[in-house]
Amino acid sequence: MPVIAVDAMGGDFAPDEVVKGVARASLGTAIECVLVGDEPRIQKILESVSYNPEHISIRHAAEFVEMHEPPKEALRAKRDASIVVGAKLVAEGHAQALVSAGNTGACILACARHFRTIKGIRKTALASVYPRQTEYPGQDQLALLLDVGATIRCDALDLAQFAVMGSAYARRVSKVERPRVGLLNMGAEPFKGGDVLTEAYQRLSALPGIDFVGNIEGNDVAKGRADVIVCEGYVGNVVLKLIEGIAEVVTDVASNAVKRRFMWRLGMMLLARGIREVAHLADYTKYGGAPLLGFEHLFLKAHGRSTARAIENAVKVAAKAVRDGVPQEIAAGIEAVR
Amino acid sequence: MPVIAVDAMGGDFAPDEVVKGVARASLGTAIECVLVGDEPRIQKILESVSYNPEHISIRHAAEFVEMHEPPKEALRAKRDASIVVGAKLVAEGHAQALVSAGNTGACILACARHFRTIKGIRKTALASVYPRQTEYPGQDQLALLLDVGATIRCDALDLAQFAVMGSAYARRVSKVERPRVGLLNMGAEPFKGGDVLTEAYQRLSALPGIDFVGNIEGNDVAKGRADVIVCEGYVGNVVLKLIEGIAEVVTDVASNAVKRRFMWRLGMMLLARGIREVAHLADYTKYGGAPLLGFEHLFLKAHGRSTARAIENAVKVAAKAVRDGVPQEIAAGIEAVR
Repeated sequence: MPVIAVDAMGGDFAPDEVVKGVARASLGTAIECVLVGDEPRIQKILESVSYNPEHISIRHAAEFVEMHEPPKEALRAKRDASIVVGAKLVAEGHAQALVSAGNTGACILACARHFRTIKGIRKTALASVYPRQTEYPGQDQLALLLDVGATIRCDALDLAQFAVMGSAYARRVSKVERPRVGLLNMGAEPFKGGDVLTEAYQRLSALPGIDFVGNIEGNDVAKGRADVIVCEGYVGNVVLKLIEGIAEVVTDVASNAVKRRFMWRLGMMLLARGIREVAHLADYTKYGGAPLLGFEHLFLKAHGRSTARAIENAVKVAAKAVRDGVPQEIAAGIEAVR
Repeated sequence: MPVIAVDAMGGDFAPDEVVKGVARASLGTAIECVLVGDEPRIQKILESVSYNPEHISIRHAAEFVEMHEPPKEALRAKRDASIVVGAKLVAEGHAQALVSAGNTGACILACARHFRTIKGIRKTALASVYPRQTEYPGQDQLALLLDVGATIRCDALDLAQFAVMGSAYARRVSKVERPRVGLLNMGAEPFKGGDVLTEAYQRLSALPGIDFVGNIEGNDVAKGRADVIVCEGYVGNVVLKLIEGIAEVVTDVASNAVKRRFMWRLGMMLLARGIREVAHLADYTKYGGAPLLGFEHLFLKAHGRSTARAIENAVKVAAKAVRDGVPQEIAAGIEAVR
């Protein structure tokens, strides 16, 4: 069973929800977790819940990075920050993956400083799963979008590498044998989107082992055309947060409707499952966890507003990615196209 | 009353729905329209509906650009295409604005060839209205996003000019006195998004007459923080189409729910108005029309799938923009910041 290092101090509801999530995972699975952070605080929270002590250990870290600190400055000032201690634990082989719901920039920076990049990888990418309509029976309900924020701008070769990394992740974790890869663009035709995207289209078409389905426009993101969508971090980040934002608005409209009229309230009750299907859109970005791909070790970014349930899920996904050999699959994929 | 040239041959449902939409506008308003396209076909459709002949004339054009033709090649081969004839009518003063639901690239190219750019403008921008939650009572339910596809990449000065143009449009057409302008970015902090966006942030902060509220992340797009959001065309196009795509998925889920279970069907009926509120998200992108800003003349791009109702609305919006003096307001705004 893999050992997962969990940054107990990262996230809007840390350390409480993080520790509780790990406690839940300790009861329901055989995964071992190392909680990294303020030991007395962690211990106190653990004492308030039930957990399996054989599956949880604590590694003290005196400091932690706040959610809105500038990453570079924070890591310079806080050498014993929980995210740094966690990354070192993994780099030194005491754990096989790292999970944090903390400051995304600080997480990526800590990984970049302590993890080795897979040979041949130019830029690492943060991938996010999100739910979409399915196009055929049996198609995975989740698709992968990368990069969603580890980069800003990317060139064609970066985008091609994202396709290789995303395909490897989808093959191993989502068990999609031949993931369909799309390039996020502003039109379907191969010549759309300017020089970088036109070159990326050509590169992706020529990549062995990649099932490139062409350009994906915004309106296809929520549909089933591609299993893996690649784009630069700026666009990916905007898209991911827009999906979250719209889901919140829909939920708001629905709950306002419930308040307003008796008939609507009745309608909502009868529709409960239908509405839940829509709400999934927000749920998955909150519960799915975003793997940072391209390092020899795994880092899984949990949503900043992670609850205990989200942390429990992130720990499970991280353990699965370790067992499924995601970094090895990425390395093999990159080697194959060099 | 302004005269509006309408490309009768552009759009998925042209010429039928376009001609019918203009016929509706002729009965309900005093706007005069020139239908540009295949005269016998237009005449035949007009004969099948009721309309006010005093408000409609026809200008024959022998050719038209198909929806998926490459724009440059199409305009080179079809010198008498309806969109070109329409643009010339406006450029020569026979009409004050042009409306088309046709091939977006061909429309923009025809305008670029025949309209003069406002002095000082570096790039024109296609703006789109979309509905969002309101933050305070009385706030306009619609916000403006630009550019959504006339450009691909933009520099900081382009983005600053988009802010000036978008503000001018919002002041005149939406009657928002001090439109709040946001920069679409991958984080709230001023230093986010790389060199171009950091410089754009600084420029926007310093622009006289612009109420810059800072960076807007994806999750704020659907909320009320900004009335005008500026970004490069690649991102704006993806965002706009994603909003449409998600709205379609929501509608699909809702109508599937209706098919599946009696209780759900009952719930949907009781919720009808609540669901319609959500469906607005798609409606506005279909019915709002997207003004192309930066030329001395107005062009309004109607959605490709425009129905008669959408065309009628686009004609009204174009007439309003002419009466409200949008190009003059933009010119004054650009002059003020030079």
